[in-house]
Order: sequence, then C-alpha cells, then structure tokens
Amino acid sequence: PPTEKDQVCTLIPGDGIGPEISDAVMKIFDAAGAPISWEERNVMATKGPGGKWIIPLDAQESINKNKVGLKGPLGTPIAAGHPSMNLLLRKTFDLYANVRPCVSLEGYQTPYDGVNLVTIRENTEGEYSGIEHEIVDGVVQSIKLITEDASRKVAEFAFDYARKNSRKNVTVVHKANIMRMSDGLFLKCCRETAEKNRDIKFNEMYLDTVCLNIVQDPTQFDVLVMPNLYGDILSDLCAGLIGGLGVTPSGNIGANGTALFESVHGTAPDIAGKDLANPTALLLSAIMMLRHLGMMNYAGRIEQACFDAIKDKKSRTKDLGGDATCSKFTDEVCRRVKDL
Amino acid sequence: PPTEKDQVCTLIPGDGIGPEISDAVMKIFDAAGAPISWEERNVMATKGPGGKWIIPLDAQESINKNKVGLKGPLGTPIAAGHPSMNLLLRKTFDLYANVRPCVSLEGYQTPYDGVNLVTIRENTEGEYSGIEHEIVDGVVQSIKLITEDASRKVAEFAFDYARKNSRKNVTVVHKANIMRMSDGLFLKCCRETAEKNRDIKFNEMYLDTVCLNIVQDPTQFDVLVMPNLYGDILSDLCAGLIGGLGVTPSGNIGANGTALFESVHGTAPDIAGKDLANPTALLLSAIMMLRHLGMMNYAGRIEQACFDAIKDKKSRTKDLGGDATCSKFTDEVCRRVKDL
Ligand SMILES: CC(C)[C@H](C(=O)O)[C@@H](O)C(=O)O
Ligand SMILES: CC(C)[C@H](C(=O)O)[C@@H](O)C(=O)O
Repeated sequence: PPTEKDQVCTLIPGDGIGPEISDAVMKIFDAAGAPISWEERNVMATKGPGGKWIIPLDAQESINKNKVGLKGPLGTPIAAGHPSMNLLLRKTFDLYANVRPCVSLEGYQTPYDGVNLVTIRENTEGEYSGIEHEIVDGVVQSIKLITEDASRKVAEFAFDYARKNSRKNVTVVHKANIMRMSDGLFLKCCRETAEKNRDIKFNEMYLDTVCLNIVQDPTQFDVLVMPNLYGDILSDLCAGLIGGLGVTPSGNIGANGTALFESVHGTAPDIAGKDLANPTALLLSAIMMLRHLGMMNYAGRIEQACFDAIKDKKSRTKDLGGDATCSKFTDEVCRRVKDL
Repeated sequence: PPTEKDQVCTLIPGDGIGPEISDAVMKIFDAAGAPISWEERNVMATKGPGGKWIIPLDAQESINKNKVGLKGPLGTPIAAGHPSMNLLLRKTFDLYANVRPCVSLEGYQTPYDGVNLVTIRENTEGEYSGIEHEIVDGVVQSIKLITEDASRKVAEFAFDYARKNSRKNVTVVHKANIMRMSDGLFLKCCRETAEKNRDIKFNEMYLDTVCLNIVQDPTQFDVLVMPNLYGDILSDLCAGLIGGLGVTPSGNIGANGTALFESVHGTAPDIAGKDLANPTALLLSAIMMLRHLGMMNYAGRIEQACFDAIKDKKSRTKDLGGDATCSKFTDEVCRRVKDL
C-alpha cells in the first residue's frame, strides 16, 4: 500500500508485451521495497478540441504533476494521420534530451567487452522538424532546424550528466564539415559549454569517424552528445554492440525537471501475453528513473540483482539465449534483490 | 611501354602517402601485365575565370577523355573558402553513385567473419546540398534536397550493380517514418525500380534498425542503397567491421560512364615518404576499376595475389599488425601475381 512518503510515478504500460513487462517491474520494485507508487495512464493520442492530435488530458496532468514517468512500448497507431506517439510525447513535454547508457552485461557475450558509454541526443528538432515541401514536381526538401537554444540546452545537459555520473569525457558528434551552419551552430554551442566545464574533457568527432571507430573499439568512448538523427542512429548502433534493444534503457529529460523513462524496443505482438518477454530494458529504464529521483541505493540494489540474474544462464529469457519465462526471470530478480 | 591496345586511365596520386601507394599500384599492375597506361594529373582546385573554384582544365580534359580515373588521398586545402575536393570532384563529373564493397579479408581477424556487402550511396544531393540559411539569430536551417531524378538513377544503378555482380538482394535504407516526403520520395523511386527488377529481392529498412542489426550480424546484408548522408555513415561503419579504411575500396560512378575510383583513407602525413603505408585500399579500388572496364581476369588475379599476401602475416604492413614496409608488401603481391 502506498505510504505518504512514496514518490508517485506515472506508469504507461503500453501495448503488446508492455503490460507484462510493466507488471514485472512493479513486482521487482515491491520486492526491493522501493518507495514508489504508480499512477497508471493511457497516453495514446486522441483528437483534441481544435482537431489536433493530443496526449489525453488526464495523462498530461499526471505527468505534469508527478514529473516522472515510466513507459512501455506503444504500438504504431493505425488511424490515418495519427502522429508517431514517441514524437508527440517528446513534443508535448519538451523532452529535449534523450539519454541512453550502453553498458556491457557481465556474463552475456557479444563481440565486445567493457562497453560503457552514454549517448545523449537532442530530442526536439534537427532532422525531426517535420518541415518538408515539394518545390516542383519530383524535387523535395526537408528542413533540418538547429537552434542555439536547444543545442545549448542539450550541451549543458551532457556536461552536467557527465559530472553527476562521474564520467570524464564528452565527445560532440557532428558533420560540420558538410553542414557548416547547422551542425556548425551545434558544435559552437558544445564548444562554448565545454569552456565553462573545464573539469570534463571535451572532444569533437565526425559522425562517420565515430561509426568507424566505435565498431573497432567502443571502449574509447564515454559520453557522446549530438543532434537528433545522429543520436537515433548511434544509440541503436551502440545497443547492437551489447545485445540489442531488449537490454538497453532510455530516458527522456525535459523542461521543468519532467522526465520520461522508456524501453525502446517494440511491442512484440507475436509473443505478447505468452510470458516470454524480457523485462530488462524497462527495468533498467526504471532504474534510471530511480537515479534521476536520487534513490541511488534502491537503484544500485535492483540493478545488481538484475545483472546477477542475467549472469546466471538458467534465468535468462529466450532473446538472450535462455529458456526462462518472464515470470521466472522476474522471480529470480526479486529473490536476489531481497538478499542484497 | 604503353601499347596501342592499352586503356588509358587518369591517375591522381594525391598528397601525403598518395604518391607511394600509387607507385605500388602501378608496379603491381605492371607485374600482372594489365593493359593499362596511366596519365598523371593534379586535380587540386584552382580559381577559374569567374572566380569560382574549379578542377584544373587539363585534369578535367583527361578524365572526360579517358572516362576512368584512380585517385589517392587529397589533403585538406588550407586556402580560405577552398571547397572540399571530394565534393568538387563529385559535382564536376556528376558522380552520382558511390559504391563501397566491404568484404572480410581472409586470415585477417576482426570480430566479424564472412562480411560481404556493398553500400551504394547517392552522391550528389540530400544532406550534402550545401544550402543553408540563418533564419533569425540563433536559428539555422540546412536543406536536404531529394530529387526523383537522382533517386531513380542511384536506385537503377543499385539493381544493375546487383545483377552484374551476381548479388541477390537490394535493401533500401531510409527514415521515411520521419522524413516522409524526402526519404519518402527516395523510397518510392526504389520501390518502383524494384518492380522492374523482379529477379533481385528487395527489402526496406530503417537506418537505425540497419545500424543495430549490422553490428549484430553483418552477414545478413547484401547490397544496400541509400541517400547521401546515410551512405557516408554506413560505409564507414562497414569499413570498421572488416579492418578500416586501409582495406576498403571505393568507386564513384557518374554520367556518361565516367568513373573515379579512390581510396577513402587520409593522407597520413605522419608516415608519408617513410615506406610504411598500406597500398591495399588504393589497390582494391584499382581492381574495382579493372572490373568496371570489363577486365575481369586481371582483376581476379591481382585481387587474389593481394588477399594471399595479406593472409601471410609476414608481408602485412603496420596498420594490419605486421612489420612489412610498403615496398615489401608490394613486392610480395607482384611475386604472387606473376605465379597466378
Ligand atoms: C520510432 C521512431 C520515431 C524513433 C525515432 O526515429 O526517433 C525511434 O527510432 C527512437 O529512436 O526512439
Ligand atoms: C571528406 C568528406 C567530405 C567525405 C564525406 O563526408 O562524404 C568523406 O567522409 C567520404 O565519405 O567520402
């Protein structure tokens, strides 16, 4: 039962495997005694008064009040003209920075060891502006919009994040050799922010060079900050290095301290309801949420229990090569977290 | 001595290690008896009559006449306002498709085995349009320009290339979920071209998904076709999977059959003139050129000799973990090619 001291968090279970992995996370949080209570909401967009697609008002209120939310995967809406839910959420709550830590899972083998980096992506503009025109027949332009405001905000966020998380190095990833003005502005904002944060080392690298180097030796990277599309690409690439979207968390940080944490994998309709899903990505996202709330202890314990369970091949789910069900993995994490 | 039957090719040795790796290639071609004679030219841009930067006219004439060229690395020009030489060459000769095969080197170990794919990049427009504006203070836009013409041309090229090279599968890489009109147009052109080339399998994939999947299992990919920037990124990523830019060739295919083959690594000023450079990337590019000219036999023999030399650890250059000089590696390839 929620106590007065509980932090209330909005929970958006999502579609497909969303509800079962959300249940798993709640169960594990209970077992850990984490002082969180959940307020469940549905965010699937509806038509607002002016005919515009909006997040349902009660969900908006809940997130605005609680300032933190956890979200499972959302299905692709079928209605014509329905916007991407991810984009609408980022816009509605001005979630300007997307943070994805990528850390090798101990005991889970991929071609890479010791990956421990974080991608920080500008989340509101750039190639995602949505402004496009057909100039004449067969000639289309899309506008990449870079503002000093958004660039500076995400740059400052990256250095703050590095400091708070005892990381030493921020690398800005860009193509200012080609997009001299837009990426140039982003780069300039990062350089100026670096000047004010001399305790953190600062590097600049071209996106193509980062891609080449990261698959040769990802351990050379620490915090990476970049415009929207580059972050979309690099965060997925990095997820691939350590085991895929089933084991990587994500956090969207916004104005006024609002933050929405989410697993970025799909709804996996083929296995939904079959107790086969891996709740790890959502659990790690929930752990990011705990850290965001300053609950370092609970975060550390639950994370340890999760990693220990994965290290034990018997409790791995199918996507990680095991044959444990979602419940079995969840029980295993619960058992371990109680012992820590 | 060149004979009448020789095919004349323009040779742009380039800067830094360019001349020594060009010499290596010429030596190996001689040893193989390849019926090629070289016409050396310098392409470093100069100011043309109207004050515009241009490729020197004698180099333009040579390339226009010969229709094929081989180019080493070019240094970054220092003069203010000097354009990127790569971009100027692509523009001057309308080199609309950039082709980069990525094939695992037998015996040279990376985390990946059996990589055998080709990236085909639209090379003239997209994010590389060069059109940018500052709308108001602190707000910049870059224009990504996609035309039906260029998209269709590169799509057709990709299917032709697949057929000619006995490849079975073309995947278009896009973000039409975000850039619905521009990437949407590119995607539409690929779909329509696929309809006319039913003998080749056709897939569509998001760029982020490709990045994630390719680092997990690159062997699932065959021919990939995509807009300019995505090709810049993916080609470097793929090079990273098999050993870097020192071992990956590149070809730029243009209007009227003009084609310029080049190594895409840098000029490596630190080792220039020291007989330490690896000529493999330029040699493999020259082999692509032979295939382009229909000289399949010479191409196959030289390629075999090159791969065999790399397989033998004693003749590897420093970048591949060996201690052979550029001359020693070159002699080794020459010796082997004579025996084939
Ligand atoms: C679903 C899609 C709109 C989204 C994106 O492109 O940003 C996704 O790939 C992501 O990374 O969150
Ligand atoms: C040097 C640079 C202009 C170029 C590009 O961005 O296209 C390079 O990265 C390439 O891939 O040829």
